[in-house]
Amino acid sequence: MPEYELFYWAITGLGEPIRIALTIGGIPFKDNTPKNCPDFMEKKEASGCQVPFLTIDGTTMGQSRSILRYLGKEIKYDGKPLYPEDSMEAYKCDELIDLTEDMRSPIGPTFAIQDQAEKEAARAALFAPDGKITKFLEKLDNRLESFGTNVTIGDIYAFCLVNMMRQPTFVDGIPADALDKYANINKHHDFVAKLPPVAEHYKSAEGIRVTFKPFS
Amino acid sequence: MPEYELFYWAITGLGEPIRIALTIGGIPFKDNTPKNCPDFMEKKEASGCQVPFLTIDGTTMGQSRSILRYLGKEIKYDGKPLYPEDSMEAYKCDELIDLTEDMRSPIGPTFAIQDQAEKEAARAALFAPDGKITKFLEKLDNRLESFGTNVTIGDIYAFCLVNMMRQPTFVDGIPADALDKYANINKHHDFVAKLPPVAEHYKSAEGIRVTFKPFS
Repeated sequence: MPEYELFYWAITGLGEPIRIALTIGGIPFKDNTPKNCPDFMEKKEASGCQVPFLTIDGTTMGQSRSILRYLGKEIKYDGKPLYPEDSMEAYKCDELIDLTEDMRSPIGPTFAIQDQAEKEAARAALFAPDGKITKFLEKLDNRLESFGTNVTIGDIYAFCLVNMMRQPTFVDGIPADALDKYANINKHHDFVAKLPPVAEHYKSAEGIRVTFKPFS
Repeated sequence: MPEYELFYWAITGLGEPIRIALTIGGIPFKDNTPKNCPDFMEKKEASGCQVPFLTIDGTTMGQSRSILRYLGKEIKYDGKPLYPEDSMEAYKCDELIDLTEDMRSPIGPTFAIQDQAEKEAARAALFAPDGKITKFLEKLDNRLESFGTNVTIGDIYAFCLVNMMRQPTFVDGIPADALDKYANINKHHDFVAKLPPVAEHYKSAEGIRVTFKPFS
């Protein structure tokens, strides 16, 4: 089997969907972070990539969602690839990824706010009734009224990036009840969290990864 | 053949890659814009989608890049689908799309600047030697040092979104020489522009679409 190495910060963020895909595929990989890899920053610089990037037998692949789509074609679960072969099913998977990106994107500019109180207020505002993220969480909740029984990279991506908005998270300032009212999103959370390899992977999770365990 | 209808503004932007993919596929479609469709805004509202969206026999598909990936699997050119079947070739196509998105994204916030002089200055700054778009144009130019002989939706996406940064464009304030120094990007431009169905489509183009014609 080829040797896989992932390079990402020691957070969930954009690296976690790749970690979960590899885990579902039963593919061993070295999970390099600045905490366990002394020359992490040198390797990041040498790659010419933003993190996360993946190396397969030393060949570097950048762009988190491109990596995920690649793995989705290579990895099967229950006999089906994580990226659907049927083009309309693949569309639904891509559309879930893109909608999740729409939901995530308003958080980006808040990372540049230096004042802590101001940053937390700006983030809380995104989840207010008229907030920029609320608009897309509502769309995502509608989208997840139904979902397939075969897990896709779209499901994995939505699961991870929604969890980034759940307390406890490394994105400080998000209200603890921000996601409470989204019944479909929370039902979908448990669909992914209860997949046996995912549940096994997070069964002893602590800190920001407790939100990756099933709710019920 | 199913009936295709596209809904988008009368600009190039995120709709043009879909128009080109359909054109390359020889698929007739109704190109609805507010200029030719009196109830455009009502139909947009009813769809629940952002533009562009596509309807196929009345079924609505949103998310521009998801639509493009779908069409890429359905449409062949020279016997090959526009979205490659091989997973590593598909990765390269996806990575080109994601890199193009990185290049495009800094322009987004400038659309909110109300003062015209301030907006144009902010845009020009993105293309300065230390500009946010310059960084990604350099990466894109490296990426396009080589590209395949079979056109992909990645090629189409890069071609269209780079052209959005070329004068004349609907994005005012971008310096006229902003792309002059990127030899690989400009070589890639002509690769796409000279594909017979693309060249035929734009042969009488005027205004913001003159940049879609071959340079040489």
